[in-house]
Amino acid sequence: MAKIADCWARAIESFSAGKFVDANLCGAAQVMLQNNPLTGLLFLAGIAWGAVSAGMPQVAIGALVGLVGATGSATYIGVDDPSLRSGLYGYNGLLIGVALPTFLKANPLLWVYLVFGAAVSVVVMLAIANLAKAWGISALTSPFVLTTWILLIATHGFTGLRILSLPQPGFPQIPVAASAPALDGEWVIRAVLLGVSQVFFIGNVVAGVIFLGALVVSSIWAAAFALAGSMLAIIVALAVGTDLNAVATGLFGFSPVLTAIAIGTVFYTPQPRVVVYAIMGTIFTVIVQAALDIAVMPFGIPTLTAPFVLATWLFLLPRRDFAPVRHVVGSGGALHDN
Amino acid sequence: MAKIADCWARAIESFSAGKFVDANLCGAAQVMLQNNPLTGLLFLAGIAWGAVSAGMPQVAIGALVGLVGATGSATYIGVDDPSLRSGLYGYNGLLIGVALPTFLKANPLLWVYLVFGAAVSVVVMLAIANLAKAWGISALTSPFVLTTWILLIATHGFTGLRILSLPQPGFPQIPVAASAPALDGEWVIRAVLLGVSQVFFIGNVVAGVIFLGALVVSSIWAAAFALAGSMLAIIVALAVGTDLNAVATGLFGFSPVLTAIAIGTVFYTPQPRVVVYAIMGTIFTVIVQAALDIAVMPFGIPTLTAPFVLATWLFLLPRRDFAPVRHVVGSGGALHDN
Amino acid sequence: MAKIADCWARAIESFSAGKFVDANLCGAAQVMLQNNPLTGLLFLAGIAWGAVSAGMPQVAIGALVGLVGATGSATYIGVDDPSLRSGLYGYNGLLIGVALPTFLKANPLLWVYLVFGAAVSVVVMLAIANLAKAWGISALTSPFVLTTWILLIATHGFTGLRILSLPQPGFPQIPVAASAPALDGEWVIRAVLLGVSQVFFIGNVVAGVIFLGALVVSSIWAAAFALAGSMLAIIVALAVGTDLNAVATGLFGFSPVLTAIAIGTVFYTPQPRVVVYAIMGTIFTVIVQAALDIAVMPFGIPTLTAPFVLATWLFLLPRRDFAPVRHVVGSGGALHDN
Repeated sequence: MAKIADCWARAIESFSAGKFVDANLCGAAQVMLQNNPLTGLLFLAGIAWGAVSAGMPQVAIGALVGLVGATGSATYIGVDDPSLRSGLYGYNGLLIGVALPTFLKANPLLWVYLVFGAAVSVVVMLAIANLAKAWGISALTSPFVLTTWILLIATHGFTGLRILSLPQPGFPQIPVAASAPALDGEWVIRAVLLGVSQVFFIGNVVAGVIFLGALVVSSIWAAAFALAGSMLAIIVALAVGTDLNAVATGLFGFSPVLTAIAIGTVFYTPQPRVVVYAIMGTIFTVIVQAALDIAVMPFGIPTLTAPFVLATWLFLLPRRDFAPVRHVVGSGGALHDN
Repeated sequence: MAKIADCWARAIESFSAGKFVDANLCGAAQVMLQNNPLTGLLFLAGIAWGAVSAGMPQVAIGALVGLVGATGSATYIGVDDPSLRSGLYGYNGLLIGVALPTFLKANPLLWVYLVFGAAVSVVVMLAIANLAKAWGISALTSPFVLTTWILLIATHGFTGLRILSLPQPGFPQIPVAASAPALDGEWVIRAVLLGVSQVFFIGNVVAGVIFLGALVVSSIWAAAFALAGSMLAIIVALAVGTDLNAVATGLFGFSPVLTAIAIGTVFYTPQPRVVVYAIMGTIFTVIVQAALDIAVMPFGIPTLTAPFVLATWLFLLPRRDFAPVRHVVGSGGALHDN
Repeated sequence: MAKIADCWARAIESFSAGKFVDANLCGAAQVMLQNNPLTGLLFLAGIAWGAVSAGMPQVAIGALVGLVGATGSATYIGVDDPSLRSGLYGYNGLLIGVALPTFLKANPLLWVYLVFGAAVSVVVMLAIANLAKAWGISALTSPFVLTTWILLIATHGFTGLRILSLPQPGFPQIPVAASAPALDGEWVIRAVLLGVSQVFFIGNVVAGVIFLGALVVSSIWAAAFALAGSMLAIIVALAVGTDLNAVATGLFGFSPVLTAIAIGTVFYTPQPRVVVYAIMGTIFTVIVQAALDIAVMPFGIPTLTAPFVLATWLFLLPRRDFAPVRHVVGSGGALHDN
């Protein structure tokens, strides 16, 4: 593996386009807080698989357009090189590129809207990173969440952009106690893998496996915490009695997956007290997910990864020193993983 | 009084459990921004009286469980000793312990939820104190408000936790001009005392008297401003024509009571211009209360003490120097009262 | 012009009342981020014209009362003299004074409410300026937006203040594709000028011309960017297919006008890349306007200038250095224009 990485490093340095490709691949990897071009490549492969399987190739195209659009905009605006290279200006654009064609119908205006949104995500990333660095925390996926919320709410008032699967603004339906589901092994494995794949708004078991594999390439700990986070989320969601269909399709899992990776492996070094802290943060993320699911209903938008951002910020802000912070906070206030 | 305090001080230092009890009693006192174990003890007595009188002993038990759970969690996480001893990691847990059994039905899951919420309140306290200390302000009860809002909104989506008295998400009813009430002396005295007792979500006149007495033990100024704040809130609420039933049951009084104590006695020293400033802040708190009552309706939650937090932050942030700040900002960014 | 300014400068210094008048006129000018008493005088003239033309003289009186009330309160509280003189404590009061009689029926209580709100706006300005200066950004009109939102939401619960034109809390109506309007030259010119006049919540073509003239007195660049911002907003709004009636009455233009002035001329010096950045920010403001129009509906309030504040903060926070910041950040964290 080290040899391949070394070979890759020499190859990308030899020509400028290589550096740009590398920045984009790392941008894809940063969605799960990794800084590894191969991980990013596999993430893109998983997105492509999931999108094509669902008959929505525009989602995969959107991911690529958003990623390159954001990285290109960052180059034009002139951000610092190390942050650009580690993908910190690409991941929000990729997620916007996945989210917009998922929730809106693809038409020419959508693509203009998507590229504009990707460019704005760079400005919002710079803005939030500037705010966040005062407390030594990272922007996480908040630039994606804020930008996409604005882009999606606005479409409720636009006739030029049509809604595909966005909920209408309304009040929550009170849940009724569901009859006990067939919680067999297959149900559990599917739900766990979908929890991982939904990080990219993809509901596909194979994509979930690819994403886990991509994490293994970068960090075995990250993969382990992702898997454990998805499992823990299912246990908690069943214990409190949430909508079973949402649990089965991974919708309660993706934010806890990200929280588990972030608290357990990226900002702290794994050790017993960190594990307790990460478990607590992951459980709290499930509750925040349920709360935000209700809170966003009047606005006709999905929560996106806001539960991850809110819970993880609350658990990073105390800056507990029970574990040395392994990762360097970059100039943009966001994380590096060298 | 000084002798008793001295005796108490020697007693608690002599054994470790004593220190823990002291931290908890001060935690109770910090709900009204005091740092006095006897005040805390009387607050707990008032809660117990009010809860038992209303046939809801689980509220008093919840207060104790939340308080001890939060203080214990803070000890486990490892916060600095002076802040722990002055009760800064207990008061949010106590309030969560009062609020959850007030709004949700008591079942085994509720108690698990309550203890978890109390533990999370410590993390949120550390997080917000870290944010707030950049501007020299204190977290006030914001960790309680944020944590409890999340815990309560989420229950609209849980079948395992059932709602007791939480409003359903909806839009406000337009108020109709009520017929003039019998605003006799008894009505006013009741409303003023209920305004004080509702700081702990207790609607009981005797509890209001106990809480005022508890304040006198710690600071005669605090008691005076609490009383004046409750009275002023009633006058303002009647002048603008709000829901009379809410005024009569103290629901427009508890946030102004806290604002009056905070601005008038805790963060500034009483003097003429401070009194004008505190009056302005207290009046504004009544308007913020009315505004947030409407604003939280789509989410099916109560305002809790958010009006106090928002108004007091806005009035503390300017850091006017027309009076020296008497209270030291602690390492946790929250207040001490030595 | 220089001679008149010089003459004015000597006149106002000669007596204390002159300084107060100057502070108020500059306060009016700061609504569009200018620091010029003649500009302020013309703004007041435009407001008076628009208010009287619409048969609502109380709006013009409110503007004056709010402006003087806020500047007077700032003098009483004791703010620093340079900020006071450049109008930084007046503009939020003026806007509150325009907004309240626009949305609420004029009765004696309204005037008490208006003066109180103007006084609170000074506290909120000091609070937000204290928050904002940590990142070198200005408060913009956020004190006005926050204070007025609170004052307006609260009135949904007051019988003493009656609503004139505030929307009832509700969910958005899904827009239907409108039939093509007669987009002739007159329609466009009217819409562009109304976009400028709506900065003061005035829908009057002549007022729009007066406001543009007032900008020319202070800065030809500011006038040019205001005009361009209003035109660009119309193009973007038509392209995405928003409510044509709102576009025609300038409701999609006023926030973009302010964004264009702020990004293009106040905080950066005009040059090619700044123009690109300002265009991007102005387009984004239109999308934020559409999003917030939907987002505030459950609360029964208008967006006011929140889209301008949110978009401009996001575009100022990155503190791009492709252009030197010409304007000094004052002690209050807000802008001077010397």
